[in-house]
Amino acid sequence: MIDSILDQPLSQWQTEGTLDKEHIVLSSRIRLARNFKGIAFTNRDKEDALEKVDTMMRRVPSLLTKVDGKSYSDISLDKLSGIEREVLVEKHLVSPNLVEKVNHRSVIISDDGAVAIMVNEEDHIRIQSMAAGLNLTKAYERAVQIDDAIESTYDYAFSEKFGYLTACPTNVGTGMRASVMLHLPALAITGKLNRVVRSIIQLGYSVRGLYGEGSEGLGNIYQVSNQVTMGISEEDTIAQLNKIIEGLIKEEEKARQSIAREHSDAFEDRVWRAYGVLAHARKLSGAEALSLLSDVQLGIDMGILHMKSNAFFDKLVVITRPNFLSKYAGQDSMTADERDAYRAKVVRDALNIEQ
Amino acid sequence: MIDSILDQPLSQWQTEGTLDKEHIVLSSRIRLARNFKGIAFTNRDKEDALEKVDTMMRRVPSLLTKVDGKSYSDISLDKLSGIEREVLVEKHLVSPNLVEKVNHRSVIISDDGAVAIMVNEEDHIRIQSMAAGLNLTKAYERAVQIDDAIESTYDYAFSEKFGYLTACPTNVGTGMRASVMLHLPALAITGKLNRVVRSIIQLGYSVRGLYGEGSEGLGNIYQVSNQVTMGISEEDTIAQLNKIIEGLIKEEEKARQSIAREHSDAFEDRVWRAYGVLAHARKLSGAEALSLLSDVQLGIDMGILHMKSNAFFDKLVVITRPNFLSKYAGQDSMTADERDAYRAKVVRDALNIEQ
Repeated sequence: MIDSILDQPLSQWQTEGTLDKEHIVLSSRIRLARNFKGIAFTNRDKEDALEKVDTMMRRVPSLLTKVDGKSYSDISLDKLSGIEREVLVEKHLVSPNLVEKVNHRSVIISDDGAVAIMVNEEDHIRIQSMAAGLNLTKAYERAVQIDDAIESTYDYAFSEKFGYLTACPTNVGTGMRASVMLHLPALAITGKLNRVVRSIIQLGYSVRGLYGEGSEGLGNIYQVSNQVTMGISEEDTIAQLNKIIEGLIKEEEKARQSIAREHSDAFEDRVWRAYGVLAHARKLSGAEALSLLSDVQLGIDMGILHMKSNAFFDKLVVITRPNFLSKYAGQDSMTADERDAYRAKVVRDALNIEQ
Repeated sequence: MIDSILDQPLSQWQTEGTLDKEHIVLSSRIRLARNFKGIAFTNRDKEDALEKVDTMMRRVPSLLTKVDGKSYSDISLDKLSGIEREVLVEKHLVSPNLVEKVNHRSVIISDDGAVAIMVNEEDHIRIQSMAAGLNLTKAYERAVQIDDAIESTYDYAFSEKFGYLTACPTNVGTGMRASVMLHLPALAITGKLNRVVRSIIQLGYSVRGLYGEGSEGLGNIYQVSNQVTMGISEEDTIAQLNKIIEGLIKEEEKARQSIAREHSDAFEDRVWRAYGVLAHARKLSGAEALSLLSDVQLGIDMGILHMKSNAFFDKLVVITRPNFLSKYAGQDSMTADERDAYRAKVVRDALNIEQ
């Protein structure tokens, strides 16, 4: 199963889900940070604590299967190549943080790829649950099911006063981070994105790029998530974030309408040029590919271009990432030039299939 | 016939000629400046002189037909619309200078488009003769044939000491300007063009862009012509210019080889991107179209792209000019936006046919 996770650009949950027609929200995600009672936090780097957590988690896959009937793989990071670990990061199954060290670090992944539990990241475990489109509740329900199953076997570090205890104080309380990944090209094109992002940040939410901080703007993909984990329930956090996201969708829709109304000729040209370059270029950097793919996806969403599948963009966003690309090419070491040439080829082939 | 001249991008002589395989030299041209004895120069702007020359030239078409069996059209500029006059300029059949005034101005054009005699431009007449590829001798021989035919009927202003007398002293002597139009993209890409152009200018030749001074760089097309018209025979002028051009061809060939040797990946990418944009853009400015067409033509020349006809570039260079384009669209007044959209459409259609 690990092979299919590493080789397929999209997990099952991403192609099954009903995407909204406008394709603004790509995915929803819940992450629960949990630590076990009586074991030193991971960041104290105690070998026996790391090992203990690692051993405890070996039992979890079969435990979860009993609960939901799905199969789970237990993947030790030290059994993966460097490139395979980076592919997990590129697919958002693990954090960049987790793969920095490999001893006793692992990830438990469900066969549909919708659940990934990181072991010995910043906290003992981080339960991640994903859903296609805007569906935080669905993701949350599955996370809770898994959380309950683990808690039925092991004791979490929990304080009546503070809630779940975590390695970093910013997660104490619910230990929950709810986040939504959005494609906001029209807000970017019309220059309204900065204002919108600022107002969301002022409300106490964080807005980051496709790969966290520093990747802002890449493919016009943004992650919006809650910051507060104390003094608010999980349900209220999700309800509030849903409201924020619905507002953001409306802003993006308005921006799309304004493009269609006021700049339709220039925009049509932009979309077709992006398509022309993607369909013909012999070299593409990762950032350029994402930027052009974003234009093409917006062109599809706005009825200018027509593609067979609605997962075109989501798929290529993953495929064009450097490590996934190397894995895809079956080559462990590619120069940047080779990668740019291979990326261009993969994109050309994909466009030919989608036509 | 005037309609076919205005509507067809290429004249017969341009598609008949054997183009060199590398497509570096687009065309050769001879221009003879002549004035009639006893009539005030055109620039003195005397109505009776202008009218006299105009009337004399009415007889010339039938005179020339007797000599070479071809038919000639006599086109009075005041019978053409502004846009039609500009199309003649864009097709290099007349100079921008000629169309500034229309009274008694005309052009006599042979049915194959290879000969165009401007009447009442700077001089009383300017005999222009064109040939495809590098073939100054062929163009010169036809110019002489026409020159002799006219001289057999009318007396030219000629001085034993100075040669042919012309309105501007820089043309006195042979009155001949021999010029060659070249496509030099590889010299431009490799940054060697400026040095090469400087050395040609130092030898006393002029190097200008596709539409004379100020159009340098447009589509990487350059015209090289002699400056000196006194103290040298026509044959020697042509022989010297031929040498210059042969040297220039060698430099361009070397630059193409260096691109193929050292930058083939980057170049292949550049060519395909240019093709991708030309084949898909919905708006193209004239300058961008020429620049991309230049890349595509070099890609064809270097075996990266394959097109059916070898006149692809020459044809589109004319079609994409603003006035030709308006004429082509059958619309006398187009906004710049409409023209850019129509230009993109015409280029897309042409690429589809040529594929």
